[in-house]
Amino acid sequence: MAETVEYDLVVVGGGPAGYAGAIRAGQLGKRVACVEMERAGGTCLNWGCIPTKALLKSAELYQKMKKPETFGLSVKEVGFDFAKVMERSRGVAGQMAKGVEFLFRKNKVDYIVGRATVPAAGMVEITEGEQKGKFLKAKNVLIATGCKMRRLPDLPVDGARVMTSREALASKTLPKSIAIVGAGAIGVEFAYFYNAFGTQVTLVEMLPQILPVEDEEVAKLLHRAFEKQGIKIHVGTKCENFRVGKDSVKLNLVKGDKTEEIEVETVLSAIGVVANIEGVLGKNLKVELDRNYVKVGDDYQTNVKGIYAAGDIVGPPWLAHVATFEAVSAVNGMFGHGKPERVKNFPGCTYCQPQVASTGLTEKAAKEKGLAYKVGKFPFTASGKAVASAESEGFVKVISDAKTGEIYGAHIIGAEATELIAEYGLAVHLEATVEEIHQTIHAHPTLSEAVMEAAAATSGEAIHI
Amino acid sequence: MAETVEYDLVVVGGGPAGYAGAIRAGQLGKRVACVEMERAGGTCLNWGCIPTKALLKSAELYQKMKKPETFGLSVKEVGFDFAKVMERSRGVAGQMAKGVEFLFRKNKVDYIVGRATVPAAGMVEITEGEQKGKFLKAKNVLIATGCKMRRLPDLPVDGARVMTSREALASKTLPKSIAIVGAGAIGVEFAYFYNAFGTQVTLVEMLPQILPVEDEEVAKLLHRAFEKQGIKIHVGTKCENFRVGKDSVKLNLVKGDKTEEIEVETVLSAIGVVANIEGVLGKNLKVELDRNYVKVGDDYQTNVKGIYAAGDIVGPPWLAHVATFEAVSAVNGMFGHGKPERVKNFPGCTYCQPQVASTGLTEKAAKEKGLAYKVGKFPFTASGKAVASAESEGFVKVISDAKTGEIYGAHIIGAEATELIAEYGLAVHLEATVEEIHQTIHAHPTLSEAVMEAAAATSGEAIHI
Repeated sequence: MAETVEYDLVVVGGGPAGYAGAIRAGQLGKRVACVEMERAGGTCLNWGCIPTKALLKSAELYQKMKKPETFGLSVKEVGFDFAKVMERSRGVAGQMAKGVEFLFRKNKVDYIVGRATVPAAGMVEITEGEQKGKFLKAKNVLIATGCKMRRLPDLPVDGARVMTSREALASKTLPKSIAIVGAGAIGVEFAYFYNAFGTQVTLVEMLPQILPVEDEEVAKLLHRAFEKQGIKIHVGTKCENFRVGKDSVKLNLVKGDKTEEIEVETVLSAIGVVANIEGVLGKNLKVELDRNYVKVGDDYQTNVKGIYAAGDIVGPPWLAHVATFEAVSAVNGMFGHGKPERVKNFPGCTYCQPQVASTGLTEKAAKEKGLAYKVGKFPFTASGKAVASAESEGFVKVISDAKTGEIYGAHIIGAEATELIAEYGLAVHLEATVEEIHQTIHAHPTLSEAVMEAAAATSGEAIHI
Repeated sequence: MAETVEYDLVVVGGGPAGYAGAIRAGQLGKRVACVEMERAGGTCLNWGCIPTKALLKSAELYQKMKKPETFGLSVKEVGFDFAKVMERSRGVAGQMAKGVEFLFRKNKVDYIVGRATVPAAGMVEITEGEQKGKFLKAKNVLIATGCKMRRLPDLPVDGARVMTSREALASKTLPKSIAIVGAGAIGVEFAYFYNAFGTQVTLVEMLPQILPVEDEEVAKLLHRAFEKQGIKIHVGTKCENFRVGKDSVKLNLVKGDKTEEIEVETVLSAIGVVANIEGVLGKNLKVELDRNYVKVGDDYQTNVKGIYAAGDIVGPPWLAHVATFEAVSAVNGMFGHGKPERVKNFPGCTYCQPQVASTGLTEKAAKEKGLAYKVGKFPFTASGKAVASAESEGFVKVISDAKTGEIYGAHIIGAEATELIAEYGLAVHLEATVEEIHQTIHAHPTLSEAVMEAAAATSGEAIHI
């Protein structure tokens, strides 16, 4: 056994759960190490949320620049250098990763580049990297190894004909055509992105709607908007029989008893994630799992004392902000800084244009639960700010208790939806009512007025519809 | 006396107070008329908030199109047609005004184009327009005549050498140089707009900072940002001795004992507003005024029973959203639909780039009140979304009770500040604490995370700084 160091906490994984948990422990004055096999920031920062947002911003601006006359402007020859678009995205990820490394130093977190395994409670072994073979003694261990992209069965990812989002983010060439398998947030964002730059996009979803977790009305409007933008969409459709050639992939789209063959330059698999659990737990460590996800209690502790887990590795909803909240809460609890909180409400965002964001129950879920609810809805066509910005597609929809007005869920599609949802997030957290949102003075002219007017519409009191 | 019609409510003025009050009365099933001398929507919609936002959107996009390489994009010959930029702005105003007219019809509001005077309680006389001479009998009257631009003494507005924002919004030519007198929200927005399109802008403010009502740190950062953009700023400076020539205006900038003469093509006066009270009250109607503003009680009623007032005409803060709230509240109260509420908290927004928005107390005000407060601050340079969008200038600052954490005020400068402020608006309305904002899961990656992190920073718990 090599040198042994003692930590208050060793975090395995440096993504949104891992790095945030490590930093929080550092803030609490604890001796902490964070082991990350790739780069600080994890998938989210390096291969997910952050670099995709950089790409999407390029796409948005490119789209706007092609219609300058809307704003009294003019240009000649709008163009793009795809390699530079991708390079910028990598640059942003690199900058943010350096930021996390800075925060590690600032908070005295030992950052260890490598893989780690947890052989037993109180112990972490570095299994790859410069410190390979080193054992870290740890009063507490936080497993935050997250997830990786699920791959299509029998379809090897080669980064050219077949990609997951990870390879797509590293690619420097724009495909002429692409089939995107899976229309969750990732699939939908890439569909918007590629289509904006001129790729022929076919978006395929097995379930009956794109963005299956979102409200039906929202998904319907996005479906229409995407088709208008030129994206081909197949819902309720399976992809089968992939035949990978030198320059293209043939596949069958199967809907009910109908089969259609398509041929595309590239297939992007966006069918979800699987737990990064391989090699994380020692053979003799009997941490309970549930379909490869680590089972935790209300304090984020596993069945083994001193071993905690947080983030994607404990299961859905696989969202960076949920992961961060869980890890910080776990660390606070482990060091006696308040009672750890399990996640109750959280927002979900999709950063295509129009943007989609939501929190809480969809209308369908409210109906299925047998709740007595009311719906308030306000279209952005009636918002002065949206019209002035030439971004009037979309609406705000809020679902609330028919009696008390407490908000069950809110759904926004349109410009800045991903920012606007924050107010409903706070409202749901505080168990506020639609009446309280309605009675809050919102600045004019802003898109946030639509948040208020949707609340007001619940009782027929919206002024502008 | 001409024909007499009986209304439950006659509203004098069709701006954000007047039209909203009239629509609300219509929603309550009341017989209501709204008299507006110009166009439905008033100054805000036709000559203020709305058309300026259209102009600013053109300016923003123009600025971004000139730096396409930031996003991996390229263009040749970015240009603009100023007349078209202005035309679009008029078009947006026109569209929204038609929207208000539609809402009048939908809510059965009689829309009367004309001027009106209130000769006595229970009575409104149309004094201009097609229905001139007509008397309306009204159980209730709501005076909502608003304000107009204050003019510089002894400096006639000619729409070419000398303008207020109103003439600026109608102008079809871009001045080569402009002196903007007054650096409140209107002055600052026009400074950003003209500078973006290449006008040499000199912004002059009598008080020690631009945006005098905003937090000092915010104003300082905007000052620096504006100077970097090329705007010349003079604070603590008076404009004197205007000499209007054929093609230019000469004026003196007086700061302490120093005087500098400048010569500009145009002067834009943005020195505030004055009450639109002339001709509104009959000679024998003894409605109490306070420096030309109508005095109202907690129910928005004047000292004369049945005569109410709301919006800019009752005095500061002269904001459209405050006006709307007041009028709706007054109407609700007058018809027994809940207790009328006076305005407590409201946001203020300035739509330049970077944007500025705030609600509640500035740090200076908290200090002057002798409050025990804490400050939480988070810079957008530490926000992944801001960096990915190449919009990392600015910060969020929140001021809260040192003991309870209740939020006294919030101040945002940066991208989408005017939308982000909504969450703090709700928080202040609900008397929420910084801890409650901190414990609300915010979507990653969004700018709204900065709202949360600023709250967390209050107790040193922000993860990303």
